[in-house]
Amino acid sequence: MRFTSEQRLDDGVLEREFTLGEIPGTLWTPASAPAPLILMAHNNGLPKGESRLVARARQSAAYGYAVAAIDAPGCGDRPRSAADEQARADLRRAMQAGEPVDEIFESFIAPLVENAVPEWRTTLDALLSLPEIGGPVGYSGWTAVGIRLAVVEPRIAAAGFFAGGYVPRAQREEARQVTIPLLFLLQWDDEGNPRQRALDLFDAFGSKEKTLHANLGGHTGTPWFEVEDGNRFFARHLK
Amino acid sequence: MRFTSEQRLDDGVLEREFTLGEIPGTLWTPASAPAPLILMAHNNGLPKGESRLVARARQSAAYGYAVAAIDAPGCGDRPRSAADEQARADLRRAMQAGEPVDEIFESFIAPLVENAVPEWRTTLDALLSLPEIGGPVGYSGWTAVGIRLAVVEPRIAAAGFFAGGYVPRAQREEARQVTIPLLFLLQWDDEGNPRQRALDLFDAFGSKEKTLHANLGGHTGTPWFEVEDGNRFFARHLK
Repeated sequence: MRFTSEQRLDDGVLEREFTLGEIPGTLWTPASAPAPLILMAHNNGLPKGESRLVARARQSAAYGYAVAAIDAPGCGDRPRSAADEQARADLRRAMQAGEPVDEIFESFIAPLVENAVPEWRTTLDALLSLPEIGGPVGYSGWTAVGIRLAVVEPRIAAAGFFAGGYVPRAQREEARQVTIPLLFLLQWDDEGNPRQRALDLFDAFGSKEKTLHANLGGHTGTPWFEVEDGNRFFARHLK
Repeated sequence: MRFTSEQRLDDGVLEREFTLGEIPGTLWTPASAPAPLILMAHNNGLPKGESRLVARARQSAAYGYAVAAIDAPGCGDRPRSAADEQARADLRRAMQAGEPVDEIFESFIAPLVENAVPEWRTTLDALLSLPEIGGPVGYSGWTAVGIRLAVVEPRIAAAGFFAGGYVPRAQREEARQVTIPLLFLLQWDDEGNPRQRALDLFDAFGSKEKTLHANLGGHTGTPWFEVEDGNRFFARHLK
């Protein structure tokens, strides 16, 4: 893990860009160390530099967590395969035409998830070797990657999922195998995310402790207090 | 309003029983005054002395709210009409026989709600004349009474509803007229409360700011952190 830049934010949080082999990442660490770690990812592989993710990461770091984000293969500035480019073009065309997009999402998102999870695990190994990062580890954001990680990665102790992205069939099926405490965040009127499908997914998780938070409004309308609720959720489980 | 007993709790909260005409009530006030007020009621008219309500009230008072509960007509130790007694007997019989109970609940709960609301308003007048109580006013608990109060009583600024009781047709219809900020609390596997009906009610409220919290488990399984979430919800709206 090689740090390539750093800046100190007003609230004492240190924000550093890093590379780990081919993986580009950002690490936010609070003034107090060692801190519990939260892995943070956007649904559908949006870039780690996207402003809403950065705002959430900074706020959680100011609260006392180390937070890490990476651009997984095909995400952010990383090279896309020809198949990826084709799927994105198909998706735009289908959405403009008002056609069903589930099968396009399936062909596009399922491989992104499969390829992202090993890199998140590699990143986790490297992060946990840093003295400023302690355990345990939480996960926040991209639902499909979080399901897969929660199933294969015993170091993930609790997760907050945002129900606003496409969840491939494989992850919908393995949701029952997720048993860690969950906070599941839903926007009630999310244009691109059928409400009933999100409620069915919440129902499917195998966790004994799971909480759904739903707020009125569209995809990007999540109220800011949900970031604070998320911090407190992790405070109950990352001890 | 006549105070008939008082006890000082460990955390500085003063717990007082009162009577106001025929209305018996309990008032919890925090050490710091004046405090914003929360009216707290159990679904279906359970007694104000019920241990779960008392625990919630004490915790919210320790957090900094004045909290009041009353036994409305036909609730707690107050006299029941012959029709009430008959409805309760019918309800027990129907539940034991596994028969539908909606119409019995309707005949039983609808008048309880109609009769409770004027007494809550009388109580509110009296409470707001006390120097240790300031505005604004929140409401917590019994959904049906809270819907009616939110529609007719402009002093109610925010409400937390527990989706675990029967909501009469009249209140399901006037839910659209509720426009104050809402926190709606649902137990995902509540035996006596059809989940879809609760989700439909959440959908129906006219409020622009409304949040659903759902937790795994049955009617009495609400996790304790929801009391704290409720306190923070009121902190955002009772300023």
